[in-house]
Amino acid sequence: MDIAALRSANPDHWNKATAIRALALDAVAAANSGHSGAPIGLADVATVLFEKHLKFDPKAPRWPDRDRFILSGGHASMLIYSLLHLTGYEDVTLDQIKNFRQWGAITAGHPEYGHVSGVETTTGPLGQGIANAVGFAMAEEIQRAQYGKKIVDHHTYVIAGDGCLMEGISQEAIGLAGRHKLSKLIVLWDDNDITIDGKVSLSDITDQKKRFAASGWSTHECNGHDPADIDRAISEAKATGKPALVACKTHIALGTSAQDTSKGHGALTAPDLMADAKKAWGWDQDAFVVPADIKAQWEAIGARGATDHAEWKTRFESVSERKQAEFNRAYALEVPNKLSSAIKRLKKKISEEQPKVATRKSGEMALEVINPIMPETVGGSADLTGSNNTKTGEMEAFDLDNRGGRYVYWGIREHAMAAAMNGMVLHGGIRAYSGTFFCFTDYARPSMRLAALMQIPTVFVMTHDSIGVGEDGPTHQPVEHLAICRATPNSWTFRPADTVEAAEAWEMAVTTKTTPSVMVMSRQNLPTVRTEHKNKNLVAQGAYVLADAEEKRQAIIMASGSEVEIALKARDLLQAEGIGTRVVSVPCMELFDAQDEAYRKRVLPGGPVRVAVEAAVQQPWDKYLTGERGKSTKAGFVGMTGFGASAPAAVLYEQFGITAEAVAQKVKDLL
Amino acid sequence: MDIAALRSANPDHWNKATAIRALALDAVAAANSGHSGAPIGLADVATVLFEKHLKFDPKAPRWPDRDRFILSGGHASMLIYSLLHLTGYEDVTLDQIKNFRQWGAITAGHPEYGHVSGVETTTGPLGQGIANAVGFAMAEEIQRAQYGKKIVDHHTYVIAGDGCLMEGISQEAIGLAGRHKLSKLIVLWDDNDITIDGKVSLSDITDQKKRFAASGWSTHECNGHDPADIDRAISEAKATGKPALVACKTHIALGTSAQDTSKGHGALTAPDLMADAKKAWGWDQDAFVVPADIKAQWEAIGARGATDHAEWKTRFESVSERKQAEFNRAYALEVPNKLSSAIKRLKKKISEEQPKVATRKSGEMALEVINPIMPETVGGSADLTGSNNTKTGEMEAFDLDNRGGRYVYWGIREHAMAAAMNGMVLHGGIRAYSGTFFCFTDYARPSMRLAALMQIPTVFVMTHDSIGVGEDGPTHQPVEHLAICRATPNSWTFRPADTVEAAEAWEMAVTTKTTPSVMVMSRQNLPTVRTEHKNKNLVAQGAYVLADAEEKRQAIIMASGSEVEIALKARDLLQAEGIGTRVVSVPCMELFDAQDEAYRKRVLPGGPVRVAVEAAVQQPWDKYLTGERGKSTKAGFVGMTGFGASAPAAVLYEQFGITAEAVAQKVKDLL
Repeated sequence: MDIAALRSANPDHWNKATAIRALALDAVAAANSGHSGAPIGLADVATVLFEKHLKFDPKAPRWPDRDRFILSGGHASMLIYSLLHLTGYEDVTLDQIKNFRQWGAITAGHPEYGHVSGVETTTGPLGQGIANAVGFAMAEEIQRAQYGKKIVDHHTYVIAGDGCLMEGISQEAIGLAGRHKLSKLIVLWDDNDITIDGKVSLSDITDQKKRFAASGWSTHECNGHDPADIDRAISEAKATGKPALVACKTHIALGTSAQDTSKGHGALTAPDLMADAKKAWGWDQDAFVVPADIKAQWEAIGARGATDHAEWKTRFESVSERKQAEFNRAYALEVPNKLSSAIKRLKKKISEEQPKVATRKSGEMALEVINPIMPETVGGSADLTGSNNTKTGEMEAFDLDNRGGRYVYWGIREHAMAAAMNGMVLHGGIRAYSGTFFCFTDYARPSMRLAALMQIPTVFVMTHDSIGVGEDGPTHQPVEHLAICRATPNSWTFRPADTVEAAEAWEMAVTTKTTPSVMVMSRQNLPTVRTEHKNKNLVAQGAYVLADAEEKRQAIIMASGSEVEIALKARDLLQAEGIGTRVVSVPCMELFDAQDEAYRKRVLPGGPVRVAVEAAVQQPWDKYLTGERGKSTKAGFVGMTGFGASAPAAVLYEQFGITAEAVAQKVKDLL
Repeated sequence: MDIAALRSANPDHWNKATAIRALALDAVAAANSGHSGAPIGLADVATVLFEKHLKFDPKAPRWPDRDRFILSGGHASMLIYSLLHLTGYEDVTLDQIKNFRQWGAITAGHPEYGHVSGVETTTGPLGQGIANAVGFAMAEEIQRAQYGKKIVDHHTYVIAGDGCLMEGISQEAIGLAGRHKLSKLIVLWDDNDITIDGKVSLSDITDQKKRFAASGWSTHECNGHDPADIDRAISEAKATGKPALVACKTHIALGTSAQDTSKGHGALTAPDLMADAKKAWGWDQDAFVVPADIKAQWEAIGARGATDHAEWKTRFESVSERKQAEFNRAYALEVPNKLSSAIKRLKKKISEEQPKVATRKSGEMALEVINPIMPETVGGSADLTGSNNTKTGEMEAFDLDNRGGRYVYWGIREHAMAAAMNGMVLHGGIRAYSGTFFCFTDYARPSMRLAALMQIPTVFVMTHDSIGVGEDGPTHQPVEHLAICRATPNSWTFRPADTVEAAEAWEMAVTTKTTPSVMVMSRQNLPTVRTEHKNKNLVAQGAYVLADAEEKRQAIIMASGSEVEIALKARDLLQAEGIGTRVVSVPCMELFDAQDEAYRKRVLPGGPVRVAVEAAVQQPWDKYLTGERGKSTKAGFVGMTGFGASAPAAVLYEQFGITAEAVAQKVKDLL
């Protein structure tokens, strides 16, 4: 690479881009940790994107009609931090850059949503950003259909590397974007031929342009170090009516002695290498110093968006106040006032009618109430619409001729579905929920974890939640998945026992602003157990006394979901023998654990025998299977100790010994 | 579709294929559960494959040089059960077919490895089979290089549907197969345009042939109901020198009133529909009846392989006895005699030299001993070779010009890596291990679960196992993943504290025939804690007393991996205050829980205060944080309650309060 030629061809551009390179090099060296090469290699592409294309206002980072910029290869975090600092995002100070990857700094090793104002999504786990971006672009289409182009009209730009494109989730994302002709989605591929282990060709020979084209994308390419060529390619990519890939041929760690090598992927910290690189770049500055004139040029780029923003404000204020309020409400994740009373009405009706339905159907019944009240909900399923019960009566499919459709047929793509749901929520103005079988939580988990880490209220509807699946067998029968969901911080795992609990769980899930929910629903029919109407949302407390002991309390049976019915029958058996038995329904352990100690002790007092029953592994229940630590309580568990089997559900419950008789016997054995 | 024309064009073929269709229809109807349409649609393709191409011997289902047949779309299970029954696999009796999906039958809802002799891998979770197949095909290449074409020379055939091809894992598999020119891998795509939610076009417009071609595959197509055309396409696919896709244009639920609809995807059980279909097929038989002449034709197909098998036996017996024994040993998953003593020598050396290294390095040191002794090991990494420490000194890369290379650069493809490792192990003759970061267990989990379900000894090397990752931050710091692995039945989660424990864990992992292992390894350096050499493998007991109380035992501190060092330091602090403290190292909970009660009580007697310390969530420890159930024991936990953060590792341990001082204080608070 002839660096001198690049420098002289367009010095203004070169200097701006090299400010990024120098900050990245210095910050990684100060941290002695991180990735120097990708920000250095991508600096030209990012400079052109921010200077010529991206619509953004550093003074209003959350302005709803900004373009979204997603750095899918999150390890290149110094690229985005540099850009945000240089263009004037107030939270990304030079001190933050200097404290890259240190305790208390917002400049984490990988860009984290909620830490930095200009970071649209947390990236680092590869492939997530490009799949998030599909959700961002879908959200833009849906909102544009709902509110009009005057208010919603922006692009989603992604920078992705070879790692993102090798991850399977990228194919799911590409397929979705191609199918839905998401023409405002532009992926800039950092085509640098390098991975950590060596040349890309060590593990892949895929022709990426052909691959994207096979799914309906427009494809483009450019010299990733020639600003005019980058500008041309992005301009063309925006005009195709299809999602567009721009293959940006770049040199990782450009101008350093590690250029074009996998060494360049890591932290370049050797003083000689750094000095030589800065010399080659013509950057004669102390560490972290950006000359005032270059900083001023960057700030001018940052200031450009103020006009766009002001014009948008004018347009926004020209629409009806009702529409403005609705738009703002959805963006603020506020819930319409009438939701609460509508949920109460449903609960009352159910308590009276006492239907016997699967909780997946219960979820649908709750959504039939919620969706008409909350136009910001977008539902879907990974090709299991009829099984997940996620599509309510009036919902229409999101499609080319119906961009306002609020139901997405995701195809058999659980992973990208979850990531794109996150993208929709992150975009703003939308609450996304979609379903698959609970067992296939496994396929979606990387994105579910990120929802928890980002503290966003995505809702994952997971039906067919136990051996109750029956004949499909152990590949489709979750046993460890409740433990998995409950072990994950910052998320709610709801396993309602009937339609009343399902309605309460859904109310929680669409009300929170900060917590993703997993709705764990049965395939099989269950009786209504909440037969006495209460206005209060009992699921909000996580666990509660569903039926108390009639005589002196000798036992407490805890259960969730489909096993609450079994717990109640066991209680009948025990009460018939004069053994006072309380049944505690536990629809959400995380919420119960968050209650104050007094409440928790009221529900689970020390002393009586405790038995938990759940058609899953014991691990999450162990914490309840003593009294207060150090106090004596005899306890037992009825559930699964291994994988399930293929047979009718009722047979499996019998064969695996998850029955009212077994629970009652366990209590008696312990007494 | 003109069924009459199909019938008359080739009645012999038609009748054989229709025997499959009829059995599938009858079995699904009897179970009132399952998938009729896919076996019916695929019957012609499968008939041609088994009749004209597949090398197999029903009397010797595990014959090493058989072709492998993988039904990636496992829901079409009645297709494979019918084929195995008709061709004479003795375990797949007509009774088994009649008991499809019932308790105790081997004919589970989805084909399960180990249940049915002709089922090569468990499928059902979509996309797994095609990724397994990449491992099968790699294993064939590696073994062919090791043992010669005389002994190893077979194909891997996969039938995959649209669901398999939409799952992201398929792209990872396609990329790998294309890169490595796995020319003996043939994928037959059930191109029927139907998914559960409707037409494929509802969610995908991908041109699959172009997509495969973009990754270096040869692509072909055929009329999936014309036996001559199917035969031509498969014959061509085998001759290209590349992995090959054959797009088989089929009609789901052919000849039924549900043909070409998503209804046809499910269970077709209506008596009228069934009667009409059989009439259209010209199949005038009672349920489950296959006329003797047609059964005889199928059995003749099954008998064909006996010659191939006999010829192979002759060739096999012509190679040296040493080579035969080595081949048989690897297939039987037997361990060379000298392994045990070599591991002991390593342990002794380490106990003496007491190096301070990261356990990921410890793992490498163990592998340096194992790999030269066990030529059946194949290692790899998902683009983190230098970080995972999975490549030992003499290992060469598996590549086009080095098919005997035992190290695979998987690329950034954790999911297909895990599935392909399973495939290698299932193929036979190979023990596969490969690595990524522990946090990215998430990406590989669907395949890791299947290893556990199939009871195969795949080894998943998961380094960078806690906040010890440091600056990369919470996206890269597992906190819930130990809980996830430990909640999964039938698997071993090893988290060694030093090189001695790592060597013992590796000995377990490469010795077992039935259990997958997860090797959870630190990024950061750790001291040698096993400073006194013992020949006995203590990790085999799961947990053991590492350091006992000097005075009267008042406390037990339990820990795993990098926190054992902290536990020992806490013990020092407590002993200095006269508080007798035992430290129990817990490298594998699953193995500890499998010990007899006497041993478990000896290690963890009731009475003393118990504190567990692990830089992860508490959930898996709760079971140890009481005495015997019902007995009083005060207990506490020092670990993580939420996600990590980006900062140097030492700072994080301080900030999150996972220190010797905190552990000692917890003990004192409880006393």
